[in-house]
Amino acid sequence: MVASGDTEQDKRQLVELAMKVTERRGEEISRATLASEAGLSRTVVDRHFPEEGDLFNAIIDLWYEPDIAIMEEVVASDLPIQRKFYEFYARRYIRERERYEEDPQTFALYCELGSNRFEDVRGYIDLADHYLSELIAQAQAEGFFPDLSINQALTLINQMVIAYTSPQVMLMISHRLEEEKLAAIIDTLFAGLAGGDRGAKGVSGLRAVR
Amino acid sequence: MVASGDTEQDKRQLVELAMKVTERRGEEISRATLASEAGLSRTVVDRHFPEEGDLFNAIIDLWYEPDIAIMEEVVASDLPIQRKFYEFYARRYIRERERYEEDPQTFALYCELGSNRFEDVRGYIDLADHYLSELIAQAQAEGFFPDLSINQALTLINQMVIAYTSPQVMLMISHRLEEEKLAAIIDTLFAGLAGGDRGAKGVSGLRAVR
Repeated sequence: MVASGDTEQDKRQLVELAMKVTERRGEEISRATLASEAGLSRTVVDRHFPEEGDLFNAIIDLWYEPDIAIMEEVVASDLPIQRKFYEFYARRYIRERERYEEDPQTFALYCELGSNRFEDVRGYIDLADHYLSELIAQAQAEGFFPDLSINQALTLINQMVIAYTSPQVMLMISHRLEEEKLAAIIDTLFAGLAGGDRGAKGVSGLRAVR
Repeated sequence: MVASGDTEQDKRQLVELAMKVTERRGEEISRATLASEAGLSRTVVDRHFPEEGDLFNAIIDLWYEPDIAIMEEVVASDLPIQRKFYEFYARRYIRERERYEEDPQTFALYCELGSNRFEDVRGYIDLADHYLSELIAQAQAEGFFPDLSINQALTLINQMVIAYTSPQVMLMISHRLEEEKLAAIIDTLFAGLAGGDRGAKGVSGLRAVR
């Protein structure tokens, strides 16, 4: 690799190369391996990735770059709120599905690497929660999800759509996931998600069944 | 181990021993290993498990035995249908959580073994689907989940409660799962799950966001 003089562009090329090598080897790679594969000195590689963990973090950032762009675009759009919720999930789901179908083994590899380094993926999850909170506030301003705090609605929605956001769940049941079903789930949230005890849990707890 | 003369009881004791050995070794064990650990001849072990796969299948059966009892009990109960749905999930979730909290590593081991042998776990999932179909039919007779076939309702409900049924998801987000949230999800299903396009997907598809 030849340095372009543009630091950001050089770094991005290195990260793209690191992903190719990771996929070929089927494991997380070190900065030393990347330097050797790129034909660069450790000094040059370390300038972009001062700590060993910085390389994998940069891979995570590149992996999630399109997802972040999708979320920003949907939140900024002027679609009706129910459509926004659907697009917020559907676009990312479709993108993940494409990546999965292109190469299920590589997809599984990144899932595994991501699971092992959950704290590094945390930043993306927090950002997704941030944007979802904005959408929930908009929905609540229009009367949806009544009697719930934003955080309560957030955790319930996250749990009810996890099949369409979790790469691990996609690995398990990809053949059962469809945009039509995601739409039905979003419709169900808008028609039915609210706070307060509405009958499922009951007053007598688990002992009620004899 | 000494044979009791009761074939079923002998087999059960062997399966319980096989689970202990599996947990100690952290991997699936063979019939040969079980025979050696039990101090029994291969002939005796093979009488209970004619094929190599029969041993792990018997472990799966024992693992799910309490879950099946829970489902049968709830389906046969005379609770209101919304309460039945909650108990159908909550009791199994609480049991799985207990197993997880007792020993997260062993729990993760069984998850891994189960993932590798998904076809063998399939029988339990099919049985759970069978009982859920019964509950859905009861709910629809009372006017819930309109304009959906039983199978459509089944797949949507399975996806919306997967956080409380999948051991793999429990491994990822156990700290975020709570009975109160499960109850809110069941209440949301009863208030909002229905068929037909109700606005999320829209007519213009993904291109609607610019």
